[in-house]
Amino acid sequence: MDDIIFGKNAVMEALIAGDREINKILISKNIHSDNKINKIKELAKAAGIVFQFVAKEKFLPYAEFNHQGIIAQISPVKYQDLDEFLTQKHENASLVILDGVEDSHNFGAIIRTCVCAGVEGIIIPSRRNVQVNAIVEKTSAGAINHIPVIKVNSLVSAVQTLKNSDWWVVATDASAKDNYYNINYNDMNFAIIMGAEHAGVSKSLLKLADYTVKIPMLKDFNSLNVSNALSAIIFETVRQKLTKK
Amino acid sequence: MDDIIFGKNAVMEALIAGDREINKILISKNIHSDNKINKIKELAKAAGIVFQFVAKEKFLPYAEFNHQGIIAQISPVKYQDLDEFLTQKHENASLVILDGVEDSHNFGAIIRTCVCAGVEGIIIPSRRNVQVNAIVEKTSAGAINHIPVIKVNSLVSAVQTLKNSDWWVVATDASAKDNYYNINYNDMNFAIIMGAEHAGVSKSLLKLADYTVKIPMLKDFNSLNVSNALSAIIFETVRQKLTKK
Repeated sequence: MDDIIFGKNAVMEALIAGDREINKILISKNIHSDNKINKIKELAKAAGIVFQFVAKEKFLPYAEFNHQGIIAQISPVKYQDLDEFLTQKHENASLVILDGVEDSHNFGAIIRTCVCAGVEGIIIPSRRNVQVNAIVEKTSAGAINHIPVIKVNSLVSAVQTLKNSDWWVVATDASAKDNYYNINYNDMNFAIIMGAEHAGVSKSLLKLADYTVKIPMLKDFNSLNVSNALSAIIFETVRQKLTKK
Repeated sequence: MDDIIFGKNAVMEALIAGDREINKILISKNIHSDNKINKIKELAKAAGIVFQFVAKEKFLPYAEFNHQGIIAQISPVKYQDLDEFLTQKHENASLVILDGVEDSHNFGAIIRTCVCAGVEGIIIPSRRNVQVNAIVEKTSAGAINHIPVIKVNSLVSAVQTLKNSDWWVVATDASAKDNYYNINYNDMNFAIIMGAEHAGVSKSLLKLADYTVKIPMLKDFNSLNVSNALSAIIFETVRQKLTKK
């Protein structure tokens, strides 16, 4: 539980100090707003930190702690800014963008795969996607320390920024015409967008993508685990890199 | 808990009836052997079912059931025999062999990937590998119903049987010389052996393999999740199949 901060004062102090990376603040719908809660909301807004009002049942796992109906979820790592990332030099580099991946174990496996395949960063949105938490850190088997995770408020803006910076954007979509291996990934910086397991990549991102690709299925059963889908694609880009003539 | 049978009588009756697939029988080290326990061991041996003596703490999750220090873990699916599998016609077909995969979620993801990639069967050993259980069934997202799982008592014998039946055997090994994409997987039946995440494929199996291959790493961090490693390799075989000239 060292990735959770409990109670009004502790959450407020963490916001004021600003030295720990807060993924999200959860506030019970059952508590009355007071000056401290208002101050917390104000500080969170200013810092671009998501806060959500949730049913009191969400606090059951923390019953033994004096949480007062408010907790902050802490990331074990610092996130990087996209702008900061883009000021660095990238050549024939790759990024992975996660759009709605919810499972911590999948995120951990994705981080491992990205590090092994030399991916230079992973972009996640601050909402509707799992954040880096203790389970992600554990299932990443140390890989989280070898790759920056870039958190953005809007994936649409992030993808536009990438395109303006001469990155090519590849989105995965089960109904795409091209197979993922029909793209030549060499000699460009590219970002691959992976969607939620059921919903896929958001329409607004599919529209922005330079390429949409699918993984061809040899059986009429289209239900790959998202980390496995990414692995198939990302190691094809590695194969192309290493066999380039 | 509908994948567990509790208590001496229930376990004995399941063994006699033989209509449910038993993964393993666990017996507490703390119970005294009696006629029923002896009979259970005898029936299990005859049926080739693994039984293990374990510390009584293993029974803590079942405290509310009248387990009498003995439980049988049930598979939600029937396993297939290797001989039965090999009597069917296979052409340019693939098999996946798991050697020491312990995590149920990984096994579930592997089953999904195998079905999507048209793999015709998955071979697991009866010991030192996760069996099909309720978590595997759930994380397979239904895929378990689309592929046979073949359980064998010895992977070494199984690999020898495959080789005698003109299957080619490919083992993954981090120190292999060949990259997985340097093999031509077309025009043959092949089986890919994936090892435990830390230990890798057993030496006895590496010796038997026709090919050993590695996944090249672009960063000095060799720690892919086993289902992601399999996905990279198996979709390369799909790519070769679909782009064959």
